[in-house]
Amino acid sequence: MARSRVAGQVRIVGTGLLGASIGHALTARGVDVILHDTSRSNLQLAIDYGAGRAAAEGDDPALVIVAVPPDVTADVVAAELEAWPAATVTDVASVKSGILHELEAAGADVARYIGSHPLAGRERGGAISARADIFMGRPWVIGDGDEVRRSQIEDLVIDLGAVSVDMSAGEHDASVALVSHVPQVVSTLLARRLAGAPEQAVGLAGQGLRDTTRIASSNPELWVQILAANATPIVEILRAYRGDLDAVLAALEAPDAPGARRAIAEMLAGGNAGVARIPGKHGQSKHFSQLVIMVDDRPGELARLLTEIGEANVNMEDLRLEHSPGAQFGLAEISVLPEVEERLAAELEARGWKIAGAQE
Amino acid sequence: MARSRVAGQVRIVGTGLLGASIGHALTARGVDVILHDTSRSNLQLAIDYGAGRAAAEGDDPALVIVAVPPDVTADVVAAELEAWPAATVTDVASVKSGILHELEAAGADVARYIGSHPLAGRERGGAISARADIFMGRPWVIGDGDEVRRSQIEDLVIDLGAVSVDMSAGEHDASVALVSHVPQVVSTLLARRLAGAPEQAVGLAGQGLRDTTRIASSNPELWVQILAANATPIVEILRAYRGDLDAVLAALEAPDAPGARRAIAEMLAGGNAGVARIPGKHGQSKHFSQLVIMVDDRPGELARLLTEIGEANVNMEDLRLEHSPGAQFGLAEISVLPEVEERLAAELEARGWKIAGAQE
Repeated sequence: MARSRVAGQVRIVGTGLLGASIGHALTARGVDVILHDTSRSNLQLAIDYGAGRAAAEGDDPALVIVAVPPDVTADVVAAELEAWPAATVTDVASVKSGILHELEAAGADVARYIGSHPLAGRERGGAISARADIFMGRPWVIGDGDEVRRSQIEDLVIDLGAVSVDMSAGEHDASVALVSHVPQVVSTLLARRLAGAPEQAVGLAGQGLRDTTRIASSNPELWVQILAANATPIVEILRAYRGDLDAVLAALEAPDAPGARRAIAEMLAGGNAGVARIPGKHGQSKHFSQLVIMVDDRPGELARLLTEIGEANVNMEDLRLEHSPGAQFGLAEISVLPEVEERLAAELEARGWKIAGAQE
Repeated sequence: MARSRVAGQVRIVGTGLLGASIGHALTARGVDVILHDTSRSNLQLAIDYGAGRAAAEGDDPALVIVAVPPDVTADVVAAELEAWPAATVTDVASVKSGILHELEAAGADVARYIGSHPLAGRERGGAISARADIFMGRPWVIGDGDEVRRSQIEDLVIDLGAVSVDMSAGEHDASVALVSHVPQVVSTLLARRLAGAPEQAVGLAGQGLRDTTRIASSNPELWVQILAANATPIVEILRAYRGDLDAVLAALEAPDAPGARRAIAEMLAGGNAGVARIPGKHGQSKHFSQLVIMVDDRPGELARLLTEIGEANVNMEDLRLEHSPGAQFGLAEISVLPEVEERLAAELEARGWKIAGAQE
């Protein structure tokens, strides 16, 4: 493990999943990590797991990382700014403008505060689920502020293997409203429609419904805080969404009226255009071809398939497994570069695999 | 290949993906399959690929399967009922009530018509993409009607490896509105919001956004027909959805008002409850644990991981790959039974794999 770029002691307040994970990563790089948590039990657990040490007389942190729930983040940041008059203080909350405004209103020394937000995959779990690697390859937004203090956060981001992205608090909040918070609301509202539905109807569910509702299983307590704290940009996007929904409803209420089918078609084409903007693997919007291959539902079969794809000297860009209700096999959807699709299909069929479909 | 349960000649009208795929499956089982298509070129292509033969003097089909676009299905079914006065006629369109009403209004001999709908994974592609296996393990809805004629469709469904589900036309249409058509609209409207968004914002997109918008890349021409043909139940569900959306908007417009947070929390909890109703693997609503493992982005690495999971004697229930922008590795999310999660994590770590997170 390389030495840390972060200089001096680092104090982490809040030893949940994010705080403890940062602690593990920095400790592994030789940083003196001081942990604090209002829960003595949580704090001791994080120390036992090796995320850092308890606070002690003479501590003098150069950097304080506040990793507490969004609704108490501003208060804790203000207290830390006051307790450590030379330190840079950052936080990892998933909303940024409200915290900045609260700090300014409270008269905190915001010149030493740099807001940040790692877009880490899992936001639940506590110290037990913490891992040094959860930030690897993820975007980590760093807010505006003093350049020397910002570079401290950039060093932290590099140490943790994340990818730094510069954004103001307002840009950040509008961006996550669009790519995270509004999708959460939309998916949740769709899933709600299933709650009282007949068993027979949900029995027809396929991968499309599973994908669109997956994030609706997220933790309600955490998401109430996030949605309430970022309400303004979320409301703006949801209003535009409702405008589109009203237009579709009007068209579907009279689908044979002049222009109705055109309105529906343009809505669908707009959806196509929107999806095309989402970056895929390695941040590029590449187009891959998909092969769907039948795989028997027993240990080792999928490994054998992937080994044989490797033997065919094809790099798989993505893989998705799908199981059919009542069937004793799964469908593996393999994404590959379009130019190798035909050759791979031929090689796999020659080895006895059943190809259930192909699609550009 | 086992002999077919379907007795007599089968005539398939429409040699697109579904029609040609049925033709391949039945031909492989020794059935005399007669193909017809208004496009001579498409017909010849399907015959060249082995999906069946051209119509000939003396044909006497026991079963006619109409596999044409939804908006012309009723006309073609009516013509086939008239052309073959003893045959059972079915169709595979994804909406059912409208077709039945059109047939009744046209005075067709609906006593010989049984509507059906295979919920096959891919609905685009044409005869070139046709495969005998695309119906394997999928639900295939069979409508009301004469028992002897229904059993002909049941035999067809068994021959094709699908799972028959009995539903009236109205039940079917309400069910697919819920699990397929409304998700299509909801996902499309969400994706539309991305069309004009800043590059920086879509750069923060994660798996949640990719999942919720995946089906928004569907074919607009086909979906205009489907949505317009099933407008009534779709409108009913979308109105309820809009009611929920309005309630969330009201709460988010004043998130600190009394009751606002509770309204948001109940909406989120309702989403949790809805997701829990979707059947998972093999039709059961099992709960699995997820392990997220870092996999280097080069051929063979994922195969090695899956081989070692097999060596640990663990059956993987699901797998999902995720790539991080800018990173030279992927994250493999493995679903396993909760009781084996800890043992698998320990075995994989002992073999040098990095576990990036775990979650129930």
